[in-house]
Amino acid sequence: MALIVQKYGGTSVGSIERIEAVAEKVIASKNQGHKVVVVVSAMSGETNRLMGLANEVQGQVAHGRELDVLLSTGEQVTIALLAMALQRRNCAAISTTGAQLNIRTDNKFNKARIQNIDAGLLHRSLDAGKVVVVAGFQGVDDEGNITTLGRGGSDTTAVAVAAAIKADECQIYTDVNGVYTTDPRVEPNARRLDSVTFEEMLEMASLGSKVLQIRAVEFAGKYDVPLRVLSTFSEGPGTLITLEDESMEDPLVSGIAFNRDEAQLTVKGVPDRPGVAAHILGPIADKNIEVDMIVQNVGSDGTTDFTFTVHRNDYERGMEVLENTVVELGGGEVGGDPHIVKLSLVGVGMRSHAGIASRMFTALAQEKINIRMISTSEIKISVVVDEKYLELGVRVLHEAFELDQEK
Amino acid sequence: MALIVQKYGGTSVGSIERIEAVAEKVIASKNQGHKVVVVVSAMSGETNRLMGLANEVQGQVAHGRELDVLLSTGEQVTIALLAMALQRRNCAAISTTGAQLNIRTDNKFNKARIQNIDAGLLHRSLDAGKVVVVAGFQGVDDEGNITTLGRGGSDTTAVAVAAAIKADECQIYTDVNGVYTTDPRVEPNARRLDSVTFEEMLEMASLGSKVLQIRAVEFAGKYDVPLRVLSTFSEGPGTLITLEDESMEDPLVSGIAFNRDEAQLTVKGVPDRPGVAAHILGPIADKNIEVDMIVQNVGSDGTTDFTFTVHRNDYERGMEVLENTVVELGGGEVGGDPHIVKLSLVGVGMRSHAGIASRMFTALAQEKINIRMISTSEIKISVVVDEKYLELGVRVLHEAFELDQEK
Repeated sequence: MALIVQKYGGTSVGSIERIEAVAEKVIASKNQGHKVVVVVSAMSGETNRLMGLANEVQGQVAHGRELDVLLSTGEQVTIALLAMALQRRNCAAISTTGAQLNIRTDNKFNKARIQNIDAGLLHRSLDAGKVVVVAGFQGVDDEGNITTLGRGGSDTTAVAVAAAIKADECQIYTDVNGVYTTDPRVEPNARRLDSVTFEEMLEMASLGSKVLQIRAVEFAGKYDVPLRVLSTFSEGPGTLITLEDESMEDPLVSGIAFNRDEAQLTVKGVPDRPGVAAHILGPIADKNIEVDMIVQNVGSDGTTDFTFTVHRNDYERGMEVLENTVVELGGGEVGGDPHIVKLSLVGVGMRSHAGIASRMFTALAQEKINIRMISTSEIKISVVVDEKYLELGVRVLHEAFELDQEK
Repeated sequence: MALIVQKYGGTSVGSIERIEAVAEKVIASKNQGHKVVVVVSAMSGETNRLMGLANEVQGQVAHGRELDVLLSTGEQVTIALLAMALQRRNCAAISTTGAQLNIRTDNKFNKARIQNIDAGLLHRSLDAGKVVVVAGFQGVDDEGNITTLGRGGSDTTAVAVAAAIKADECQIYTDVNGVYTTDPRVEPNARRLDSVTFEEMLEMASLGSKVLQIRAVEFAGKYDVPLRVLSTFSEGPGTLITLEDESMEDPLVSGIAFNRDEAQLTVKGVPDRPGVAAHILGPIADKNIEVDMIVQNVGSDGTTDFTFTVHRNDYERGMEVLENTVVELGGGEVGGDPHIVKLSLVGVGMRSHAGIASRMFTALAQEKINIRMISTSEIKISVVVDEKYLELGVRVLHEAFELDQEK
């Protein structure tokens, strides 16, 4: 008998039929002898509907205390309906809102962070043989105000609940049946991974394989919660997200991630002196433009080139900011390209294998794919290439590292 | 400066436009120097939508703990949107759910009764200059479970809040601009009353002038909360619901109420012995059929006739029950008529004026309206007549008692 937390997202509970199907899945787990806590999101479309009402009333992108009062009703509807569906199938169940479960957060409305969960309340219901249905995405601050964790926060709720009750596994049900070596829509040979490490998962998620929320993965890593990604709509073991040291025989490379939404901004020939990077990026940050990759090469002739990538939507604004910056710096030329993509090789195994990078670059070169930027971390190598090479690049790398084959 | 509780029902907050209009009305009161608490219902249609989902999942008329978790989201949406609308107009406002305000109820899900409200919480926000927007219809039991008060419970919430903070007035905003001498759709000369007593209001509400929930009126009477019924959609003083002794010069008759939904059931020739009434009504009550009027005349020849009215929807079931009963009683004949209506004269003034009844019966007789049943209480006289006489009867009585004229 295990203690399991299952999380079902908005698509999985998007209609009465789907809520009934989730009830069946939960009962199947219970019938295997497990104690089950279920965390659910709002029915798909509901959060957008509520945001629409709020935007209309506030006359701008809605925010603040009352937005959380409003949005938290979305999950509350789902918990009630799922608990009813379980009860109708003679499965004892009880729903609980974030406030009722005392999911304590800080007081940052719209993007609160969980600080504590009352595990005693959960254990009492579980010990009484009940399935506990928890509203994801929401909590309550020290003064009793309703808070929400920001979009996708239901994953974080599930992991936090699992950590609080020391669950054996936290199962995240999605519309994919696991984590793949890359996006199967781009590379038909993409293979489901039986397991990936937390760190790889983090890189995969941030790079576009948006299976899980980053904060949830971080949280799971921090509290040693075993996470499993499975499909709501099909059977299968999914992918287990493991701690790194659980497997000594990690493959060199776990997968290929990519991001279509990037744009590149460059400042050429700026004076190569201390503080220049801060001088360039400061005004960008002031405009709330998020920066992804940053590359500065060794300078020459007293000047240097500085390149970074931003979300494609921020490209125009970023260019404007840079034009002002070069005037202030007294030199430099601004350039950019919104039609680029980022390809990344991810794998905890690569950190001790120097040959990986050259194998990657060779594979791309053989297909005449020009690399514009390179950036590396402990467990990934990212390159920026022209956007027309996205699919070709992914397939070339997938094949070069034999990701279609079980290791 | 007064302390005012305003209650807006589902129609009054049925769209974003209407919520904005309510915000304007609230601010107008605040600008007159009043402290204002606003109690709101779910947007019209929302409770029905949620009930539909629940019925679908439960496969029957939904009920139980989870239904209240579900339904309470309706008001929660409204409080958030109204608070936003107020804030956008630079009016400090804060929303509160039933649970947050600690509106403590018993644990009868779907039809809970309010036991206590934490006035301190309300006063703190009011003293800080804020309009407090309270979710009607909902509360929380001693164990933190969400409860609802049953349909129309928002009126009760408003009165309970007004009682808790000792408000100067509890204003119930509706789609009518006051209490009328009778339904203006039936009698165009119907006149708005400046005031009626709580007792008259109770009779008027229960008899079909459904302006206010009966429990709210009872509650207001019990705690001496001055109630006023006004229109959300037009200006005007509405109708004040007063304690009886506030006006020594009550008119004889305040209004004409009627009920179209009645059906009559009769048992003739049953043995006239102690316990026969209980024997007839017991099985009716066992089937959860609610009985309205009950008339038993003095018997003769050792038998008696027993007549009562039920909701028209219960007519067939009531007949079946009675057929069984007469078999058990060893005698009697069952009859009935689903095509009857009840007309009632209401007024606290009538209790000391014996001539009222004969004036009523005379007026009806002049129009050849046959009276089938008569039942009287301290402040009303009800007659049952053939349904085709409803409109004529109302108009005849309205004229006979000169209700179109100010007294």
